[in-house]
Amino acid sequence: MAYRTTLAVRFGDVDKAGIVYYLRIFHYLHIAQEDFFAGYVGLSYHRLIEEERLGFPTVSDSTDFIKTLKYGDTLEIAVSVSRVGDTSVTFEFRVYRKGSDELLARSSQVKVAVNMDTWEKVAIPDKYRKAFEDCKAE
Amino acid sequence: MAYRTTLAVRFGDVDKAGIVYYLRIFHYLHIAQEDFFAGYVGLSYHRLIEEERLGFPTVSDSTDFIKTLKYGDTLEIAVSVSRVGDTSVTFEFRVYRKGSDELLARSSQVKVAVNMDTWEKVAIPDKYRKAFEDCKAE
Amino acid sequence: MAYRTTLAVRFGDVDKAGIVYYLRIFHYLHIAQEDFFAGYVGLSYHRLIEEERLGFPTVSDSTDFIKTLKYGDTLEIAVSVSRVGDTSVTFEFRVYRKGSDELLARSSQVKVAVNMDTWEKVAIPDKYRKAFEDCKAE
Amino acid sequence: MAYRTTLAVRFGDVDKAGIVYYLRIFHYLHIAQEDFFAGYVGLSYHRLIEEERLGFPTVSDSTDFIKTLKYGDTLEIAVSVSRVGDTSVTFEFRVYRKGSDELLARSSQVKVAVNMDTWEKVAIPDKYRKAFEDCKAE
Repeated sequence: MAYRTTLAVRFGDVDKAGIVYYLRIFHYLHIAQEDFFAGYVGLSYHRLIEEERLGFPTVSDSTDFIKTLKYGDTLEIAVSVSRVGDTSVTFEFRVYRKGSDELLARSSQVKVAVNMDTWEKVAIPDKYRKAFEDCKAE
Repeated sequence: MAYRTTLAVRFGDVDKAGIVYYLRIFHYLHIAQEDFFAGYVGLSYHRLIEEERLGFPTVSDSTDFIKTLKYGDTLEIAVSVSRVGDTSVTFEFRVYRKGSDELLARSSQVKVAVNMDTWEKVAIPDKYRKAFEDCKAE
Repeated sequence: MAYRTTLAVRFGDVDKAGIVYYLRIFHYLHIAQEDFFAGYVGLSYHRLIEEERLGFPTVSDSTDFIKTLKYGDTLEIAVSVSRVGDTSVTFEFRVYRKGSDELLARSSQVKVAVNMDTWEKVAIPDKYRKAFEDCKAE
Repeated sequence: MAYRTTLAVRFGDVDKAGIVYYLRIFHYLHIAQEDFFAGYVGLSYHRLIEEERLGFPTVSDSTDFIKTLKYGDTLEIAVSVSRVGDTSVTFEFRVYRKGSDELLARSSQVKVAVNMDTWEKVAIPDKYRKAFEDCKAE
């Protein structure tokens, strides 16, 4: 089951063309990932980093910007997992306007588990692996 | 022939982990695209937008973050074109540390030509098409 | 009476030193201003801009960064008005960690009412003037 | 004598109103501060932080946004020092359009010398104090 979180497009996110500057969308997806850790996995991303010294930097992404996002929009972002490997996990993000099922953007991002002190890849600990597996979209 | 531009990683680009926050890399790629218009196509991106009412928003990207970028790095970004369609152009970006040929990141981005007033797709005008064709990597 | 809004420090807001990069605090204050329009004045800032063609750009600020803000913090920002002129309004922002009354940052910002089409100063319309007067801290 | 550096307004810096979003100006001022360390003090800010474990976070600012900055502008930022204390230094920033002496923005910012490991205030080392004194505007 996908996890869903909501956020508002802010004035500072919008470019001269009146639409969300494309890189701000990646900021939204990172916020959705942070909310996913706090709301679905059960440990906030900042505690993951600070207490467990574990991080999930992005190593690749493939993203489609389908419709423009505008100032004033409230967005709903669905987060799910499509693949869990030994040291990597692939997140799927889908961006909607709240209350609509029209897809505005989608992104597939591969994250690698790293030790935050050494920046070396590590095996994904079982408790997180289990949460990721549970969040696989059927 | 690829166009090359240089920029410095700034303090505000670096995250808690001491590396460039992934979305700032997309900002660098947009800067490289702006430099490409001014330095290779021969018209600055802001004049393209303001005088010709033509823009090239990104509709999809596929990006690999291969090595971390760090505060203090000077980057060299190579911009080339891999495909020119009627209304779209695919840019290829390659990010290096200046003076090294180790690839740090690469991104393939499809841009669509739009009229900035109506936000409708338009055919790429011949003068830009020609510049894009000239910049195809062999 | 001050208006209060809450927001979370996000991963992308934090710099290499592990604290919120100072300019992100200005982004928070703008978010608080947007929330103030929606939650206190009764009209969202984006409708103010788009439907009434009225904006309140900042013409000066005076800000104290008293304590560092950290990743994982939830902030509470109090917004009040200290002065209402013909065409300008002075907002006072106070930033706290939620659940604490220790002041982390404070900012006094003068905003000018402008017509968004001509970018000329305009008299603050009465309905907004009244809301601003109501929000004067005693 | 003030130190001067030049930078270009980028697409991503401009907001819906077509002008530079106010917080991006603070990013420019930080870039000017980084250039000042590399170009005037003689040690890049990242080496200052990483090798000397010394940083200069901003503790207060007072800024006037006098004229709007627009996409396509090339800016010249003058950096000088107005006061050097035991542990603090006050920088003065003046923002011009390149080739014009019309003042667009000015900012006075107090920075405190801190040890980057302990985040404690430290006395400004003599070699930096001397450089700051040399950069006092007459």
